[in-house]
Amino acid sequence: MKNIESVPLPKSYLLLNHGPTTLITSAHGDRRNVMAAAWVMPLDFDPPKVLAVIDKNTLTRELIEAAGEFAINIPNRAIAAQTLAAGSRSGRDGDKFAACGLATFPARRVAAPLVAGCVGWLECRVVAEPRNQQTYDLFIAEVLHAAADTDAFSAGCWHFDAAAQATIHYQAGGRFFSTGEGFDA
Amino acid sequence: MKNIESVPLPKSYLLLNHGPTTLITSAHGDRRNVMAAAWVMPLDFDPPKVLAVIDKNTLTRELIEAAGEFAINIPNRAIAAQTLAAGSRSGRDGDKFAACGLATFPARRVAAPLVAGCVGWLECRVVAEPRNQQTYDLFIAEVLHAAADTDAFSAGCWHFDAAAQATIHYQAGGRFFSTGEGFDA
Repeated sequence: MKNIESVPLPKSYLLLNHGPTTLITSAHGDRRNVMAAAWVMPLDFDPPKVLAVIDKNTLTRELIEAAGEFAINIPNRAIAAQTLAAGSRSGRDGDKFAACGLATFPARRVAAPLVAGCVGWLECRVVAEPRNQQTYDLFIAEVLHAAADTDAFSAGCWHFDAAAQATIHYQAGGRFFSTGEGFDA
Repeated sequence: MKNIESVPLPKSYLLLNHGPTTLITSAHGDRRNVMAAAWVMPLDFDPPKVLAVIDKNTLTRELIEAAGEFAINIPNRAIAAQTLAAGSRSGRDGDKFAACGLATFPARRVAAPLVAGCVGWLECRVVAEPRNQQTYDLFIAEVLHAAADTDAFSAGCWHFDAAAQATIHYQAGGRFFSTGEGFDA
């Protein structure tokens, strides 16, 4: 296991601020799932809130509406192929973690598992906004706990020493961008 | 002027899918403004909708609520310093375009000006959702027209040949990431 440390909640937006593609995990009863989600971003700093667009037809949607919680996992380039696979098949066809080669470990505050090999994690509780959910497939959630792999994120900063460690940004058709060079404007 | 071409509306989400930081422009009457906004993402494909978080205390918020429309401009690294400046001062202190060294040109469907030197533009009309606006500073908008600099985006794909051309992703404290290498997962 990597060295994982908690991220103070008011700093947790920094995990998502640069717009990486994510994996959303969910669980309810004995069912669990993972999906790729590019449409995830911060909504507020403190208490931290996030937005996620989750299609009505997905198993993830069913589990999140039943459980009222989920987790956002931030993959890096080393698991880009698994992230793409998680975005290309349905959890209704069998356990998608196994099918995609994604290992998990327990979250602290939610039942949804966290994806091993990711570099950041946000554990979230849905803020019920039925109109947004029904009309726009839009979920608002409060971040209950956040953590990061200290090899990639520490003291409020991402730092990617190797290409495989960088977070990823989905385009389309199986194509991503790596998060590139950091610079001061 | 660069070679700017319209992007078909159902493909316009591709301009934002990788999570770049944006400049939001607005205008009402003889007032106009520009602000930096990292919390902008797609919400739907067709008709295309977007989400943007816009703080209550900003002049941009006042102009958008008065006009019911705005534009999302996607800057590249060549104008990262101007983007940072647009995020660091208030339009209430005088014309921010001039103060930040940002030139503009007219939009097609909205009164808000578009920022020259950007590589993508989405002209948007607010979908009135008063509860989201009031409670969360969250705006939903429909994309009326989209365009891109064909040197950076064509046939539905971003392609950054030079470092200065790449889009940017805000971290904090004046620090950005460039959009990095494209790859197939």
